[in-house]
Amino acid sequence: MQKLKTLPPSSLNKLADEIRDFLITSLSDTGGHLASNLGVVELTLALHAVYDTPRDSIVWDVGHQAYVHKILTGRRSRFNQLRKLDGLSGFPKINESEHDAFGTGHSSTAISAALGLAKARDLCGGENEHIIAVVGDGSLTGGLAYEGLNNAGRASTDLLVILNDNQMSISKNVGAVARHLNSLRTAPVYLGAKEDVHKILDKMPLLGASLTRGIESAKDLLKYAILQGVLFEELGFRYLGPVDGHNLPELIKILRQVKKIKGPVLLHVLTTKGKGYNAAEKSPRSYHGVGTFCVETGVPKASQTQPTYTDIFSKYICRAAAKDKKIVAITAAMHDGTGLSLFKKHFPERFFDVGIAEAHAVTFAAGLAKKGMKPVFAVYSSFLQRAYDQILHDVAVQGLPVIFAIDHAGAVGGDGETHQGIFDIPFLSHIPNMTILAPANGKELTAMFDYALAQNSPVAIRYPKEIATQAPKLLQDGQKIAIVSVGTMHETAKQVLEKIPTAGLYDAGFVKPLDKGLLAKLEGYEAVFTIEDGAVTGGFGQQLAMALQNPTCHALGFPDIFPETGTRTELFTRYHLDAESIYNKIIKI
Amino acid sequence: MQKLKTLPPSSLNKLADEIRDFLITSLSDTGGHLASNLGVVELTLALHAVYDTPRDSIVWDVGHQAYVHKILTGRRSRFNQLRKLDGLSGFPKINESEHDAFGTGHSSTAISAALGLAKARDLCGGENEHIIAVVGDGSLTGGLAYEGLNNAGRASTDLLVILNDNQMSISKNVGAVARHLNSLRTAPVYLGAKEDVHKILDKMPLLGASLTRGIESAKDLLKYAILQGVLFEELGFRYLGPVDGHNLPELIKILRQVKKIKGPVLLHVLTTKGKGYNAAEKSPRSYHGVGTFCVETGVPKASQTQPTYTDIFSKYICRAAAKDKKIVAITAAMHDGTGLSLFKKHFPERFFDVGIAEAHAVTFAAGLAKKGMKPVFAVYSSFLQRAYDQILHDVAVQGLPVIFAIDHAGAVGGDGETHQGIFDIPFLSHIPNMTILAPANGKELTAMFDYALAQNSPVAIRYPKEIATQAPKLLQDGQKIAIVSVGTMHETAKQVLEKIPTAGLYDAGFVKPLDKGLLAKLEGYEAVFTIEDGAVTGGFGQQLAMALQNPTCHALGFPDIFPETGTRTELFTRYHLDAESIYNKIIKI
Repeated sequence: MQKLKTLPPSSLNKLADEIRDFLITSLSDTGGHLASNLGVVELTLALHAVYDTPRDSIVWDVGHQAYVHKILTGRRSRFNQLRKLDGLSGFPKINESEHDAFGTGHSSTAISAALGLAKARDLCGGENEHIIAVVGDGSLTGGLAYEGLNNAGRASTDLLVILNDNQMSISKNVGAVARHLNSLRTAPVYLGAKEDVHKILDKMPLLGASLTRGIESAKDLLKYAILQGVLFEELGFRYLGPVDGHNLPELIKILRQVKKIKGPVLLHVLTTKGKGYNAAEKSPRSYHGVGTFCVETGVPKASQTQPTYTDIFSKYICRAAAKDKKIVAITAAMHDGTGLSLFKKHFPERFFDVGIAEAHAVTFAAGLAKKGMKPVFAVYSSFLQRAYDQILHDVAVQGLPVIFAIDHAGAVGGDGETHQGIFDIPFLSHIPNMTILAPANGKELTAMFDYALAQNSPVAIRYPKEIATQAPKLLQDGQKIAIVSVGTMHETAKQVLEKIPTAGLYDAGFVKPLDKGLLAKLEGYEAVFTIEDGAVTGGFGQQLAMALQNPTCHALGFPDIFPETGTRTELFTRYHLDAESIYNKIIKI
Repeated sequence: MQKLKTLPPSSLNKLADEIRDFLITSLSDTGGHLASNLGVVELTLALHAVYDTPRDSIVWDVGHQAYVHKILTGRRSRFNQLRKLDGLSGFPKINESEHDAFGTGHSSTAISAALGLAKARDLCGGENEHIIAVVGDGSLTGGLAYEGLNNAGRASTDLLVILNDNQMSISKNVGAVARHLNSLRTAPVYLGAKEDVHKILDKMPLLGASLTRGIESAKDLLKYAILQGVLFEELGFRYLGPVDGHNLPELIKILRQVKKIKGPVLLHVLTTKGKGYNAAEKSPRSYHGVGTFCVETGVPKASQTQPTYTDIFSKYICRAAAKDKKIVAITAAMHDGTGLSLFKKHFPERFFDVGIAEAHAVTFAAGLAKKGMKPVFAVYSSFLQRAYDQILHDVAVQGLPVIFAIDHAGAVGGDGETHQGIFDIPFLSHIPNMTILAPANGKELTAMFDYALAQNSPVAIRYPKEIATQAPKLLQDGQKIAIVSVGTMHETAKQVLEKIPTAGLYDAGFVKPLDKGLLAKLEGYEAVFTIEDGAVTGGFGQQLAMALQNPTCHALGFPDIFPETGTRTELFTRYHLDAESIYNKIIKI
């Protein structure tokens, strides 16, 4: 890194090109977050050219844009194992490198975390330790980012927030703040002019004719002054920018200046998602998270043809909405991932993208439901965690009919600890008035949504990121041993049954409330094994065991750990949730 | 209410006085939220004079300031049962009155909920249905309020947000937005002048000498324009204000005008907490939530002399901080309630009041812990729900040593459904890397904090809002039946033991991980009964039962409902968690 600091601009630009080539080639083999990392090549190089990690701390909000940082901090050789089991994480991790100041994964946490680091530095008398949070404009739609800004702005501490503004969350960014940023981007002048205006204003008793720098009327002046980051200045930050995020010498120059400024600073950097790779620049949404692809054409190597649970939901919700005008759909900046793009297209007036604001999404849905609508909030399991209190306090206490379409439930491939969807059953089961459903196949998914839409109380339907099986359910009464699977674990249970054909096989579509018919059927068995794609603690198996009061009810699921990165299959094998392991466990008992 | 609309100003002012007298007299007998309601007497009267509930919807953020609204909507006669079992709720509740448009309790939800109501109205073609959110300035420190503003500001819907600005959360309000509001309050002119300035700016090609309305230089103009609600205007709102919140005719006049404005409007109203009752005006913090008191002197009727768990924590944390410079304390606008006022006084540089921003508090604490500090976040159980994802994602995934001092755990008297602290064990138990402790008496509380401060991983210590028992623990081995209590339920367990002297009696100070010594001791018993002051589902008893694989392990706690308002004792009796009920249950089995 010291070397980086002495390189001439031309060499740095060459290095940027090399890193881009490496990213494109490497990710074409492994998949990963391409567009966002191509967008921050120069910014990351500039940061490491001016600051010294690990003494200085860089907190990467969300974290999927930290690949260049990883390359520059000694992890380049591990990129062939990116997002693989026991490989390189796709996110910053404090136990992966001392250069990763704070682990991230979910959005909007960086300012709060960086403020904590900064205050700790102040209290410990740390000198010349710089704290930097790199935050995308999409992350600013999250309330936590605002809480962080609001606290940092009056904290009298040295803290640099870099606003990496690419006009995108994962989808196109939304909301009033996005509009504010847009006005900053289209302001006529770049950094520098603002300082002049301040100087002029300080010197002049009243505005005179000398104010000619593109400002034609007082109204323009006012508008101009307001647009120049007033939102951030009002929050207590010194606002600087916007700066071209792909001009390395400029970036280094401004960062060197910023390094000397005391107090909270917000540096507004404009970047282009997918920069330098034509296909990704044209369609950053498609190249946000990619599988393997052909470098020349940008075309994915493996194309998936069978419908996933998301695909089935996507079509279902449009069919249902065509019939029922009360149905509205909500996403938190994920209409592609959750399958709502089709709904957005066909029912724009009933579609709401609220930005990365899951808490608002849920309370907003509660408001809609209170006045007679049927809101469906489609969301990944691990992101719904962010709205736990709103589910409990705004939806469940009032028993309002909000439907939660929980995608990415259970083990999630590739993203690791922060994105596993294994806690939804535990964090929803103890909430009174909730119904929780888990389909065993694609057909059941639509039947469950039919059911949910007919209820007058909150219903959650959870399903994995997976191709939907079209195989029918296999249920049978048996002897001695009963196997009860939750949702899509039914396929695994069927495999176990092949090895123990006399066992009873049951399905728990209703995670909550427990199915009384099922309880009755299970009474005669010597041992009951439950299989769920989630954490055991507080999960379905424990509820069933308590209801059965059966001493030999064994709840199988994820143990009390955060499962690491890996494919779903790999994680099931590692945590003994594959058919073979389950069979062995049953035999042993 | 129709009558209200035709009353002359003098009669309305008389009514305001009567309501104030009623509030003071009534609450002196029952206790309740006094200061905040005295502050909104005129505002509430004005709202009901201009708008028509239930056709129009008023959403009261937090909701403890809705007493006047309740009085005006037919619930005056029930105020002698305020906050009592089966009595009148201290918060708006949709099943209590059709005039309560949306239930509240926690902070910062109103804008999101109101936006949901507004969008539902738009989609259903509802005409002349006005939606109003009344939000305190304290609630604006919460990220959810910002998510709501950010979405409402670009929603092209008619929505009125009334900013009830009293410069307080429950404690004095904090943060950059609070500073912004302060600048609005101290701006030289009230509503009206701003419109003039806009007109002038529109008309003049360049600023001339005619600009004399208190504006002496261009810089002042700029500052003035910026201060005039630019923060809200940037978020897409039409900002109006500030207005004197105790001038009824003015309020009614401006509301009538506002009623005609299209799109999102923010009306800034200045009120005084405790208005009209000298003692409360002088010390709004003390009169935020009151017990019974003497009307003449303002002195509480019953004064509590024995220390609560909060008091013991309050002194402990100061003693510990005097010895260990790494200890820092964090509150989310509750330093009185959580016992941190003393810490604030003695260690101001290590004390952080982050505003009503629990999510930020936790991620900020994680940042502090990452860089070597020992952060203690003191928070009520039901408010910690708002930081579930931050506990999981920012603290637990990284195993950072943040200490959660969870006050108001278990049943909470008076506040009802939204404030019960019965979910903390269920929502924390399934989070990997967490340790959860519950003290049985005051002495154990301090011992547990000693333990927590010595750990290098997250620890939660939960205790109720209650006088701390100083009685020693009574533990014994017994025959056939074992009773295992969690934390302060040990006192109840001791009472049960008086009736079944041969039973074994054990204490679960460690809710998680389970105490292996305890598990070993419990193996010989025919039946085990656990008693916890929390929800059964996902709670301690279920974890113990699964670990014991004992068919007769009975988990006693709150069933799958939201316990209503009542005293702790009343709720224990109603939900069979008193000694008598537990004894009867044991005998029956």
